[in-house]
Amino acid sequence: MEEKILSFLKETVGEENVTTDLIDMLSYATDASEYTHRPDVAVWPTTTEQVSAIMKMANEEGIPVTPRGAATNLSGLCVPLKGGIVLDLGRMNKILEVSIPDRLTVVQPGVVYMQLDDELAPLGFAFPPDPASGKAATIGGNVATNAGGVKGAKYGTTKDYVMGLEVVLADGRILRTGSRTQKWVSGFDLVHIFVGSEGTLGVITEITLKLSPRPTVTATALATFDKLSDAGRAVTAIMEAGAQPSVLEIVEKNCLRAINQNTDLGLPEVAAILLVETDGATEDQCQTELDKIIGIFKANKAGEVRKAKSAEEAEALWAARKSAFAVIARINNTVEAEDTTVPISKIADLLDFIDEVSKKYNLAIPTVGHAGDGNMHPHFSWDRTNPEETARVQKAKAELYAKAVELGGTLTGEHGIGKGKAPYMHLEHSDVAMDVMRSLKKMFDPKNILNPGKMALEG
Amino acid sequence: MEEKILSFLKETVGEENVTTDLIDMLSYATDASEYTHRPDVAVWPTTTEQVSAIMKMANEEGIPVTPRGAATNLSGLCVPLKGGIVLDLGRMNKILEVSIPDRLTVVQPGVVYMQLDDELAPLGFAFPPDPASGKAATIGGNVATNAGGVKGAKYGTTKDYVMGLEVVLADGRILRTGSRTQKWVSGFDLVHIFVGSEGTLGVITEITLKLSPRPTVTATALATFDKLSDAGRAVTAIMEAGAQPSVLEIVEKNCLRAINQNTDLGLPEVAAILLVETDGATEDQCQTELDKIIGIFKANKAGEVRKAKSAEEAEALWAARKSAFAVIARINNTVEAEDTTVPISKIADLLDFIDEVSKKYNLAIPTVGHAGDGNMHPHFSWDRTNPEETARVQKAKAELYAKAVELGGTLTGEHGIGKGKAPYMHLEHSDVAMDVMRSLKKMFDPKNILNPGKMALEG
Ligand SMILES: Cc1cc2nc3c(=O)[nH]c(=O)nc-3n(C[C@H](O)[C@H](O)[C@H](O)COP(=O)(O)OP(=O)(O)OC[C@H]3O[C@@H](n4cnc5c(N)ncnc54)[C@H](O)[C@@H]3O)c2cc1C
Ligand SMILES: Cc1cc2nc3c(=O)[nH]c(=O)nc-3n(C[C@H](O)[C@H](O)[C@H](O)COP(=O)(O)OP(=O)(O)OC[C@H]3O[C@@H](n4cnc5c(N)ncnc54)[C@H](O)[C@@H]3O)c2cc1C
Repeated sequence: MEEKILSFLKETVGEENVTTDLIDMLSYATDASEYTHRPDVAVWPTTTEQVSAIMKMANEEGIPVTPRGAATNLSGLCVPLKGGIVLDLGRMNKILEVSIPDRLTVVQPGVVYMQLDDELAPLGFAFPPDPASGKAATIGGNVATNAGGVKGAKYGTTKDYVMGLEVVLADGRILRTGSRTQKWVSGFDLVHIFVGSEGTLGVITEITLKLSPRPTVTATALATFDKLSDAGRAVTAIMEAGAQPSVLEIVEKNCLRAINQNTDLGLPEVAAILLVETDGATEDQCQTELDKIIGIFKANKAGEVRKAKSAEEAEALWAARKSAFAVIARINNTVEAEDTTVPISKIADLLDFIDEVSKKYNLAIPTVGHAGDGNMHPHFSWDRTNPEETARVQKAKAELYAKAVELGGTLTGEHGIGKGKAPYMHLEHSDVAMDVMRSLKKMFDPKNILNPGKMALEG
Repeated sequence: MEEKILSFLKETVGEENVTTDLIDMLSYATDASEYTHRPDVAVWPTTTEQVSAIMKMANEEGIPVTPRGAATNLSGLCVPLKGGIVLDLGRMNKILEVSIPDRLTVVQPGVVYMQLDDELAPLGFAFPPDPASGKAATIGGNVATNAGGVKGAKYGTTKDYVMGLEVVLADGRILRTGSRTQKWVSGFDLVHIFVGSEGTLGVITEITLKLSPRPTVTATALATFDKLSDAGRAVTAIMEAGAQPSVLEIVEKNCLRAINQNTDLGLPEVAAILLVETDGATEDQCQTELDKIIGIFKANKAGEVRKAKSAEEAEALWAARKSAFAVIARINNTVEAEDTTVPISKIADLLDFIDEVSKKYNLAIPTVGHAGDGNMHPHFSWDRTNPEETARVQKAKAELYAKAVELGGTLTGEHGIGKGKAPYMHLEHSDVAMDVMRSLKKMFDPKNILNPGKMALEG
């Protein structure tokens, strides 16, 4: 990196907010994926104006800039593939406003999900998407990836809560868009262009989020199924009954087996279990909804059905689901959680296919998923030092992506495209769709300096 | 219109689906606003391929094309200001699929809101936005305007339900984007670019909508307030309590007086009434929520509080709200309903301001509104044949828009920009935001043939 650029950065954000130390460059080379590439410099801006000055300079000089939150993404989204500047938003971490009467909060991008949740919980409110990475992931990262969580079926994802944004464009201009109002139709919706844009269209420097009342009561139950098709039919019947579980998780047999082999939980090794939670403002509401769903479980040949009578019992029912990732991660030196998502009626088909692929390639692919919204997490667990096994994993994944699309689904329901899924974009998107995405990228970032090399935007 | 163009249109859609008759041109010159301009020809395409062929030709020839649903919009959105072709989507009116297990429906753009609702109701599901124009307005129009309704506070607006779109671009290319899955983060969100784009970026030819379970129980109450500030405080307190009314309407004194002067409803002429409805799946849930809200009314100095004990009583409580528009429309030869929207905590301030403006300009501005989401409907009722009064109305409106923005609100929460509010876009949007909107327009429609002259896109 040229000295004059470094000097400019130091002048702009202060010497203490710029680093080129090797140790920092190594950590900024990675995220929670397998990909890695070192930046030339990392910068911690603390104001929008600083971000604006940096982008203006970078655009003039043609230097790549990769925005970064907590780097918890799983698909290389914030790895600076072309070097240049990493813009770490972690020091812009203030909750600027919480207005309960207006049902909104205004935050800087570096605020951590849990930091915001801790602020909102005592007020009885929430920003509901609740990604499993909420202890570390930032709101800026959540917005840039449209993060979701286990409660997506009832509460939607980040996109459903973003009311307004401040974004620094590639050339340094500051765009404020959206509103503090709950309804808004004043010109084009520029807000949602940036939601899920993975740092490729602009740097998000302020976020206005809609808040939801926090449910005060929950109720939990679990059902086992000897046949996957019965579990699938139960999910379909829940949808048809108009029930609204806040959580409806599925854990299939390969996952149950993997957990049993590595813990003493002693789970039933059935075809699948369904874990359901209902929530609301009254006990009656939760229990009525739960009993309706339990009735549906029974009508669809559930084996055992257990209903939690206390918070401890509910916690015990959650054990299988909650332990899954940690357990699977311990089995081998590599685990990658996919987020293949299909229309709800296609979940059983997808799980059957995963089972086939697992046999075909002799791989363990334990799977859990959000049955309420079709978002499955097949976990690929293998020994990365073994090139032959790694090659089998790659083939199995490619088949999985193609199948998801064939079933009317998507490559990614939560984690995004980044580098990892860029080669598969064409499976899901037509040439016209890819053209439009590339035009959009060119319009916002004609010199391709923002997070280059991602999302198959370079054609 | 040149003969060769007309021949091409007739060949493309069939002679019976093209008209240049004067009577048709006169009706296609208007919508539900005051604006008017005749097209040269109107066409009823019946397939996406026909729309594609027409757009390709129009783009080559540089002919303006204005998509049109039921023309119920209130701000000149579908008036063909530059003539050319009106593309009436009314004959693409098939419900292509309803999948309850996948919680979605796929429809053509000309399907009428109520037609879809009639199909969904027996299944226990809904596409909730429910605009007051639902008997006539099309789903294509709803998407192109991001329509909302009285239940916006609890159920959001059209944008929260659009999962996927097929759109014919200005040059005739067919874009399919979005998904049949409930969660989706595969590349840029192109769907929401078209939601609320008022026919200026593409022609929507197919829509995939998320469905919601239909609430089966409702409960209704009404409270009077002698001071507007108390009503405002009650609304704020409802927000703070985390209550989720499905409806929370406000009717202020000028409106109550106007209704009394023109009906025998005999409403109390208080500063404001609040009408509240709760909904859900159980009686207990609805009543608990309603009682909580009634408690808040009382704690905030409500005068009379009435709770409906039957469907008939609920209907009676709705009378003031439901009669408002029809009554006001009868007072004078012109009525225009504004849709000024502010942060919820600013409703009382806005209503106070409307009262001031009403006195300042000696105008009746009876107002009702959706207090749950800050969307107010001040009704300007006047004699359009009187130029002096019309000038006062224009001045009052301009002050109203500026005030809304000053309060952190927006020019339009429901009706859109179109022609009517184009001159005021700069009040709400910075130069950067306007630039970005114009760039987006240029990217999608470089020859400016799609619904030209709207939304201040021509700079
Ligand atoms: C254990 C674990 C569990 C997970 N569970 C979930 C889950 O349940 N649901 C889910 O959706 N995801 C999940 N993830 C993925 C990840 O946590 C989310 O994508 C999260 O939203 C990323 O936030 P971050 O702050 O870490 O962003 P980063 O990883 O730092 O960045 C992600 C992307 O956003 C961009 N970006 C970050 N900040 C900005 C900004 N201010 N402006 C512009 N672009 C920006 C980056 O350039 C990058 O492209 C999980 C990850 C892990 C490791
Ligand atoms: C009495 C009354 C009550 C109303 N109440 C409400 C309300 O409660 N909430 C609300 O939001 N609105 C309301 N409106 C406004 C209006 O009904 C809505 O904006 C509605 O969504 C318009 O639908 P439409 O089919 O009539 O569209 P049109 O008026 O025909 O068109 C509206 C815009 O959409 C574009 N368009 C239409 N179809 C397509 C397509 N297929 N592809 C691309 N562009 C297209 C047009 O070019 C135009 O810009 C009301 C209007 C009236 C008259």
